[in-house]
Amino acid sequence: MTIEHVLADIEENRDRDLAAWMKLVKQPSISAQGVGMRECAWLLVDIMQDAGIEAECLQTAGSPVVYGEALSGRPDDFTILFYGHYDVQPPEPLDEWITPPFEPDIRDGRVYGRGAADNKGQLLAHVFAVRSYLDVLGDVPVNIKFLFEGEEESGSPNLRPFVEANRELLSADLVYTADGPMHDDGTPVICFGIRGMLNAEIRVRTAAHDNHSGNKGGLIPNAAQELARILSRMWDDDGEIIVEGFWDDVREPTDVEMALIEDLPYDPAGMSEVFGVSDIGLSREEFYLNLMFRPTLTINGLRSGYTGEGTKTVIPCTAAAKLDMRLVPDQDPERVFQSIRNHVHSCGANVEEAEAICVKGVPPSRTRTDTPAAQAVISGVASEHETDPIVMPSLGATLPDYIWTDLLDTPSVMVPYANADETNHAPNENMDIAHFGAGIRTSAMVLQELASM
Amino acid sequence: MTIEHVLADIEENRDRDLAAWMKLVKQPSISAQGVGMRECAWLLVDIMQDAGIEAECLQTAGSPVVYGEALSGRPDDFTILFYGHYDVQPPEPLDEWITPPFEPDIRDGRVYGRGAADNKGQLLAHVFAVRSYLDVLGDVPVNIKFLFEGEEESGSPNLRPFVEANRELLSADLVYTADGPMHDDGTPVICFGIRGMLNAEIRVRTAAHDNHSGNKGGLIPNAAQELARILSRMWDDDGEIIVEGFWDDVREPTDVEMALIEDLPYDPAGMSEVFGVSDIGLSREEFYLNLMFRPTLTINGLRSGYTGEGTKTVIPCTAAAKLDMRLVPDQDPERVFQSIRNHVHSCGANVEEAEAICVKGVPPSRTRTDTPAAQAVISGVASEHETDPIVMPSLGATLPDYIWTDLLDTPSVMVPYANADETNHAPNENMDIAHFGAGIRTSAMVLQELASM
Repeated sequence: MTIEHVLADIEENRDRDLAAWMKLVKQPSISAQGVGMRECAWLLVDIMQDAGIEAECLQTAGSPVVYGEALSGRPDDFTILFYGHYDVQPPEPLDEWITPPFEPDIRDGRVYGRGAADNKGQLLAHVFAVRSYLDVLGDVPVNIKFLFEGEEESGSPNLRPFVEANRELLSADLVYTADGPMHDDGTPVICFGIRGMLNAEIRVRTAAHDNHSGNKGGLIPNAAQELARILSRMWDDDGEIIVEGFWDDVREPTDVEMALIEDLPYDPAGMSEVFGVSDIGLSREEFYLNLMFRPTLTINGLRSGYTGEGTKTVIPCTAAAKLDMRLVPDQDPERVFQSIRNHVHSCGANVEEAEAICVKGVPPSRTRTDTPAAQAVISGVASEHETDPIVMPSLGATLPDYIWTDLLDTPSVMVPYANADETNHAPNENMDIAHFGAGIRTSAMVLQELASM
Repeated sequence: MTIEHVLADIEENRDRDLAAWMKLVKQPSISAQGVGMRECAWLLVDIMQDAGIEAECLQTAGSPVVYGEALSGRPDDFTILFYGHYDVQPPEPLDEWITPPFEPDIRDGRVYGRGAADNKGQLLAHVFAVRSYLDVLGDVPVNIKFLFEGEEESGSPNLRPFVEANRELLSADLVYTADGPMHDDGTPVICFGIRGMLNAEIRVRTAAHDNHSGNKGGLIPNAAQELARILSRMWDDDGEIIVEGFWDDVREPTDVEMALIEDLPYDPAGMSEVFGVSDIGLSREEFYLNLMFRPTLTINGLRSGYTGEGTKTVIPCTAAAKLDMRLVPDQDPERVFQSIRNHVHSCGANVEEAEAICVKGVPPSRTRTDTPAAQAVISGVASEHETDPIVMPSLGATLPDYIWTDLLDTPSVMVPYANADETNHAPNENMDIAHFGAGIRTSAMVLQELASM
């Protein structure tokens, strides 16, 4: 009964792990301000080495990556890569903290401090789970790798080149990330994908300068009118996106994924209130299809002509729209951008210039939920919490999860360990000590399940 | 040969009229700043009384109106009402004036000073023409009335109530206004109408607050998208306005008016350059139909969501457009606004609120060119200039000419006397002394022609 001994070891180490966690929170590591990055990386290496893990700092063009390994010595064993980040958000506004952000304080069973939950408390869960396997077995149940970066809160500018340059080192069968909060009611959540993103702008010019609407009205094109035409033709009367080619690579959800929708929380009245609309008007299936499996095309902003107080009798010569698109597998940001550009050009007959500009693209990711490894993760999480986790085939938002699924061609799961009221990115960030312990046990359970496949 | 004696009298009074003109320019009368209004009104009354005209100041809720009469004593005589304004634009920026704006200076045959052309030099032309008739005949050839207001440069807020309260006093067969510049090449111009105006705003709200495009994208309506849809449905694929009811009251141009288009100046290459477009792409007929006889629907400005630098992943909850419409007879601003409002409501299915707001309306005006009085004006102008004037059935811009045509039910003609480079509303405003003399003679010729009908 290895797992029982491991769980007992975790319990025995409770105070020591709490002390190490608080020590790590005490060390500032504000990537946006370049404060304490190397000190924090080396402190984390120390904690990992104390746990029996081979750990080191690896250079990037920015803050170092902390890399660690605990290999089983059985080369055919399953390999898991734990991803996390040791950098934290800036703590401002400081005067809203009850206790200072880098002087971790225990109140009401929680550790308060910047990074307590995001992500120091969560990444350490993996470290301490592995430590207890090493304590009990002198070995690990599967091959284990750790990649803790120091720039996540600054958009991970060096993660992709680091991963591209270290494919062999990072090769794994599964990437596992514990970040973010569990469901509001405490139910565990597992996410198997995330939507990608394409930011673009559409710019229209109809004349060299604005013209007077009295002397010139009816004689020349109007940039605002042309932009409205170009934009409105992106949707049909039912609001479906009809940009040619936009849907070409959209992968249909599988029967397994569709079945998962039935178990997802659905509270239309509550959501309408959160969204600030009178009635969300979508069934559970429509809601989750739209959120997880369908791409979006959102106008983020419009600007043309005179928008101040009163009136100005002007025919605007320029108009611009900012757009973001949330992409789903197997959409490619570059191909989607081509479809937007083609649409703009095909609609731009009355304008001097109509151009689409690609600002940024992040590919989508999705990991199958019906593989043995995915089921092992689900079982491990369920065992610790004695309840079925909410299995999200995808989230609506965007993270660079594609780095694992596309670049490393490795499945990826996201399993948040923090309490819903962690208030990450805000003052008085905290993580419940019980959630910290549950996180360590969850990582241990998952390793056990993966070893038992 | 009365007219020859009148013209001789005008010539004899040349220096005296120039001095009176400069004296009037020297008196500031900046309606926007309330500077010198009463002093200028009384000075104008003095000049008119010196000319033999019965003149007085009449109160309004703002600056006084200068009213004058020279009646023939033959009650069936034709009655002309000369309209003008004694107030001027603010002179700023002062440091761009070569000589101070209220110290009139003669250079290169022109009087420089604020109001020299707009409108003091032009309104005095009528006064001095009448003076010479009184000198020569001891009588006037038709009944003559003068209405010179003091708030034109501030939007004439009290003109309409004044006219409504004094219909009898102002009753006339023709309203005659000399304002603005002649054609670029010096050809005289006569305008018989002007387009009206409707300013409106369309405002859309789709939620109580902006939402995140990742977690909410695809789930709720987008105000910018809804606004684009509402706006784009105002035009068909050829750019024709298709708002239901918008065209209901549009009067077709008459054959006479259509024939006038053939004689209007048309220089597509020059106009394209002025408008800042590569090719205006309109025939002479299309150009003038669009400018004079068709209404317009212009988007003046668009605003929604985030329009700053970079990106913001937001679903905007509000969007707004400013619109102006140039109206032609017999469109009524209120009825046109109803058609816009109905359009917005009929398109607003996906929004929490979609509203159209009427900001301001000015009715259009048009006076027939084929009446004896109109022909008399054309003949009078042609006689002075020894060339056919450019007869514009309408201008594209907007002025409250409807006060005469609708409110007083009186035909109205606009006959600019100033040189094209008068630079009214700008520093170094000026009027050519030769144009001033030609203006006096033109008013005299027109009176002669009207008397001969």
